[in-house]
Parts: sequence; structure tokens; C-alpha cells
Amino acid sequence: MNIFIAHINGQIAELTSEESWHCTKVLRMKAGESIHLIDGTGNFYEGTLSVVNEKKSIATIQSGPKQQNKHPYYLHLAIAPTKNIDRMEWMVEKAVETGIDEITFVRCKNSERTVIKEERLIKIAESAVKQSLQAYIPKINGLTNFNDVIKSDADLKFIAHCEENHKKTLKDFELTNRKSLVLIGPEGDFTREEIDMAKKEGFSEISLGQNRLRTETAGLFVVSNFSIIHLK
Amino acid sequence: MNIFIAHINGQIAELTSEESWHCTKVLRMKAGESIHLIDGTGNFYEGTLSVVNEKKSIATIQSGPKQQNKHPYYLHLAIAPTKNIDRMEWMVEKAVETGIDEITFVRCKNSERTVIKEERLIKIAESAVKQSLQAYIPKINGLTNFNDVIKSDADLKFIAHCEENHKKTLKDFELTNRKSLVLIGPEGDFTREEIDMAKKEGFSEISLGQNRLRTETAGLFVVSNFSIIHLK
Repeated sequence: MNIFIAHINGQIAELTSEESWHCTKVLRMKAGESIHLIDGTGNFYEGTLSVVNEKKSIATIQSGPKQQNKHPYYLHLAIAPTKNIDRMEWMVEKAVETGIDEITFVRCKNSERTVIKEERLIKIAESAVKQSLQAYIPKINGLTNFNDVIKSDADLKFIAHCEENHKKTLKDFELTNRKSLVLIGPEGDFTREEIDMAKKEGFSEISLGQNRLRTETAGLFVVSNFSIIHLK
Repeated sequence: MNIFIAHINGQIAELTSEESWHCTKVLRMKAGESIHLIDGTGNFYEGTLSVVNEKKSIATIQSGPKQQNKHPYYLHLAIAPTKNIDRMEWMVEKAVETGIDEITFVRCKNSERTVIKEERLIKIAESAVKQSLQAYIPKINGLTNFNDVIKSDADLKFIAHCEENHKKTLKDFELTNRKSLVLIGPEGDFTREEIDMAKKEGFSEISLGQNRLRTETAGLFVVSNFSIIHLK
């Protein structure tokens, strides 16, 4: 099943230029064909293509909106981008498939990467949303300084680092119907200073288990934690 | 910290040729240097390099064995390889980092890939073991026919497929101290016939949540389920 992202206005769905191109040039769809649509804010629609153009295609809504059954939490993952950008790209794809609300890339003391192609990561997130049959497009924020990230608004704030001490796990907290912010550090981990700054801002230190996980694996593991805890 | 895989015989550790090459040519280590070792069956050692040769290096054990704190379950993941082998390679890396005991690649009716470079996947698994500071090297089995896989020995057998019906999740089962076999299907999913055959062999149908996950994401999600359920 192909899903397209569109701006919905009453009974009219206007496909983005990229979606129009995919619809016309790749799938060679024609006017009159029925089409599955999402608005990116949680709603599914079905429509019929009226105008089919590689720059701008339009469909008439036949049914919907049908709301996506949203997971009962808000997860904001703040992660230091890896030196190898492919690892971040797959993490974004997998995090979106598994279920996430917001991703921010963090500039830390030990960050090995200082540039992020936000646009490309947003595209990856959008196709993962469609591929996994969701209707919400998570928010993807570009590189942000650690000091600003730790001041972000959230009900629960967590920092996962590799320093040895007795830490709790995400299972020890009540995450349901709360907004959580989880910080994952760079390959070189957070500095002691960064950890202390985060703790001053109300962050709880958490453990992701005994294995030393790569940055991108840790990020996805956190997303899986929220999903699995709420699995019904 | 660099960890090397070695054959341990009394106080003598013999590095595999590949590890010897890495030790000498990449890290340029010299006789007399101390080295961290694993035997691949759960034991950590520390030793001192005595013979340093790109084909065969030898270390004398100084301390160990120290047993890895093994997770309290046995997870055998049986998964249909994806058309794009990169997706299987990262799944193997991430599954090993997260914690797995055995992976078998399954030849299904709808499989898009009929060849697996087992050796390469074993190498990926080995480096993931070392990178995540573990001492157990999981078993990686090559392509096996669906009919043989469903007859594999396990205390609990699960099949995850996309057909709509009321399914349980892994959280509904007692997985601790048991050997579990979990089957993940190809991009085109299992056929109805395959699902029925598995059920006849005692497999329980499970759901991995409401999002449609890619094959490799589903595989890793299962591994994360076991790890998170047992997170302390």
C-alpha cells in the first residue's frame, strides 16, 4: 500500500511536489485512481486523484479523517550525531518505524560531527512514517547545543551515559501520558561536566543494560523501551 | 579498550590469524604489552603478548577467566534475509550488541534472497561482540529451509506475522530461563500455509505492535524485547 503526504484543505488534498513526482513519475498513477493519504499530524484519508502532475497533484477526499491510534507517551530523543552519518540515518529510520515523536541532534563536548543535513533526515523520517503505515511525522530538529537541549521542556528528563554507578532503568519510571526527554551521548560519551549540568537541570541518570551500545544502537534501544513498555 | 578473540589453552592464549593481523598491522602492538582477551564462550582474560606475529600471536594469561554476566534466557532468532543484504548486516550487528544467542536465516516461500555470505555475517557478529564488551559469540547459521527451522528445538516458539488477528505480545510469556525461538518473515510476509505449519509445530503467533516494521527492524525489536523485559 502506497501512502502519500498531502496538505488537506476541506475535501481537497494537495500532494507535495515530491509526492506528486513519486506519484506520477515512479508509480505512474492516473487521474481517477484512488489513493491513500496522510496529513502528517495523525490523520489517514482516502481520496481519488483528480489532477495528476509531477509538480502538483490533487486528490478529492472520499473518506477520512481516520485518526492513527497514537502511543500513550511523548518521546523526545536528543542524541549526539555519530561521525558516520549512515548510522544516524538508519537510527532515524528505525526510530520512526518503532515510534518516536521528536529527535534533536546534540552538539556535545566530545561530538565528532558538527554538521547535520537536516533536510535529508526529515525525508528519511517521512518515508519511514509512510512505510510503517503511520500518520504522524515526528519533529526532527537540527544540531543544538547541549546547554540549550538540557533546558528543553519535558515532564521527565533522562541521561544515558557509560559511567559506572548504580542507575535505574526506564522501567523504573512512570512514562505513560508524560513527555520524556532522553539524552544519548557521543562515541566519546558525555563529559563529567555535562552529566553534572544535566543533573542540575533535573535529569535522572539511566542505564541501558550491561552491554556497551554504540550511540545509534543506544538511541534506538531507548525508543524500543518506550514502545515495548506500552505494548498491548 | 581493544578485545581480542583467542583460543585459550591453560595459561596460553593463541590469537586467531585475523586477530593477530589486527593486533600487529593495525594496532602495531608489541611483545610485552598487555591485552584483553575473550574465548567466545563467555570468558574474559587479561594477558601479556609474548609472540607478536601477523599470522599467529600468543599471549600469556595474567588473570581470568572472568565470566560474562549472561542474560537469563536463550534467544534464537530465525529471520528471512532481506533483498538488501546491508539491512541484514546491520541487524546482526545491532542484535549482537543488544544481546542474542543464535541467529538462523530462513528460506521462506516469499524470500527475495536465496544467498547469504555466512562468513561475513560471522565476522560482523564477532566485532559487535568485542565492541559491546561481551565474551559470548552468538551462533550464526546459514540459510535453512522453513520446514527445518520450525522443527528446531526450543521451549517456546513464536512466529511474528502481519496478518490481522488477536495476538499476544512477548510480554505475555514467561521467557526467563527458557530457550525461545522467534520467527520473522520476509518482506512479503509468511504465507498462510507457512503460518499454519508453524502453528502445528507449536508456534504461538505474536504481535510486535501496531506499526508495520521492516523485516530487519522486526528482528531487532524482538531482541530488544527480550533485553528490556530482563533489564535490571
